[in-house]
Amino acid sequence: MSASDFVRIVEVGPRDGLQNEAAEVSTATKIALIDRLSACGFPVVEATSFVSPRWVPQMADAAAVLGGIARRDGALYPVLVPNEKGLERALAAGVREIAVFTAASDAFNRRNINCDIDESLRRLAPVVARAVADGLWVRGYISTVLGCPYQGRVPVNDVVRVVKALDAMGCAEISLGDTIGVGTAKKARAMLEACATEVPMARLAVHFHDTYGQALANVYACLEAGVRVVDASVAGLGGCPYAQGASGNLASEDLVYQLHGLGMNTGVELDALCDTARWINAELSREPASKLARIANERRFAG
Amino acid sequence: MSASDFVRIVEVGPRDGLQNEAAEVSTATKIALIDRLSACGFPVVEATSFVSPRWVPQMADAAAVLGGIARRDGALYPVLVPNEKGLERALAAGVREIAVFTAASDAFNRRNINCDIDESLRRLAPVVARAVADGLWVRGYISTVLGCPYQGRVPVNDVVRVVKALDAMGCAEISLGDTIGVGTAKKARAMLEACATEVPMARLAVHFHDTYGQALANVYACLEAGVRVVDASVAGLGGCPYAQGASGNLASEDLVYQLHGLGMNTGVELDALCDTARWINAELSREPASKLARIANERRFAG
Repeated sequence: MSASDFVRIVEVGPRDGLQNEAAEVSTATKIALIDRLSACGFPVVEATSFVSPRWVPQMADAAAVLGGIARRDGALYPVLVPNEKGLERALAAGVREIAVFTAASDAFNRRNINCDIDESLRRLAPVVARAVADGLWVRGYISTVLGCPYQGRVPVNDVVRVVKALDAMGCAEISLGDTIGVGTAKKARAMLEACATEVPMARLAVHFHDTYGQALANVYACLEAGVRVVDASVAGLGGCPYAQGASGNLASEDLVYQLHGLGMNTGVELDALCDTARWINAELSREPASKLARIANERRFAG
Repeated sequence: MSASDFVRIVEVGPRDGLQNEAAEVSTATKIALIDRLSACGFPVVEATSFVSPRWVPQMADAAAVLGGIARRDGALYPVLVPNEKGLERALAAGVREIAVFTAASDAFNRRNINCDIDESLRRLAPVVARAVADGLWVRGYISTVLGCPYQGRVPVNDVVRVVKALDAMGCAEISLGDTIGVGTAKKARAMLEACATEVPMARLAVHFHDTYGQALANVYACLEAGVRVVDASVAGLGGCPYAQGASGNLASEDLVYQLHGLGMNTGVELDALCDTARWINAELSREPASKLARIANERRFAG
């Protein structure tokens, strides 16, 4: 592994995670979670979502969450924005970083946002254009890059096509998501490398789900290919909506343990992160989903 | 990844797994488990242990288990043997494959078998010599190759020294065990490659525990280095005796999913293996420890 040894972890627990948890979470708990994650040292914390409260009532308090958090200097707090209306609400809340989303699968997009890939890109273009014109940092999420719960196989070329489109719109970073966690290491790496022929590796991120236990092996293979931005969720928040009871997001603490073991830097303090994972598990009356959170409570990783 | 695409999985659930489970397991259930694993296609199933029933009462029925199983042609059924007395019992039971064990850590050996590494090697030598003279296939296990619960760091040179000693005794295969699961991919690969300077890679196996979620990433890194024998335990049987509640052995079904995804062959039928994992979890009234066993019951992987 060459290049920089710094891996930027994008902590997605407060948004991607909580949105997929069954428990109701108060605004105060959301704020406390983001503040704890900031204090752990995460350079990016995805804070909330300005989707319609009719569709995602868990995120109706987006503006209140953003108003309540203590921003750490230099950290980014992107919010998810599905359309121009969401962007307006985000801008009114003073947001400086947003994330937009689509999928590499027509079948998934049709079920999720009621249109195919091309139509979804057409809808996103003016949102991204306006955000970029306003000086915002824009992240593009692509779901189902290694498989789709509805159509099955997703050709790598379909992923590359969406990467190119998001890049052309002005996305600063593009996150490649294995939404259902079916990918294995060689396929993950090949997909990433295909995308990196179109967009510089430094602007690509990987987003793995641990549904089949493959997330960290996939991360390792993609680190070997040069990726240095990895998404993860504290405590593995966010189950898998496509397989009941299964694991969803890769747990940040398992990722940090791996990266530090590989000699990479993350800026994240692992003991504080494990404390945060245990705290949010208790708040949500939730069984630990990460390996590290299952280890005896008082185990310390520093030193 | 070059060389052969066949990975030989050594299924250790019936011995290493059950020995570390709290539940009492009947002889009939042990036999049924081994027969199911044989039917899944595992080329090697570690069947039981001829340790003293005073120390490990769970394995007092070793001879009865071996007498009851249906052997699949070509498959190996090694049993653990701690000393000459154990070897005699094993030979009396008609065993043709045995495994012996030591550690790369003096502190671990002192706590586990009440002697340091050198003394443990001296005790093993006549056991292996007699087994080899009798035409048995002998596997050597080395524990704590990437860390020790008592002494902490384990130098790679200590592992290499034990590998050389077991090789010199006549062990056909040497399994490198990260007993407490603390290793990460680059350290695992470096340790394996150091051992492979002394013993051909084809005679080395890796044995990872998933305590920190690193097992499959470590497997992947070691596959890249050329290893083609990997130990795993159906359903992740065998918790971690050094960290209460934590995961222990890598689950065979998660490993098979990975290997097949990497385009490797194992001879193991994944659907049958998942059925076996669910069955033994139910028999032991045990929560699923593997990712695959947590996925909705009726998910099929064939086709």
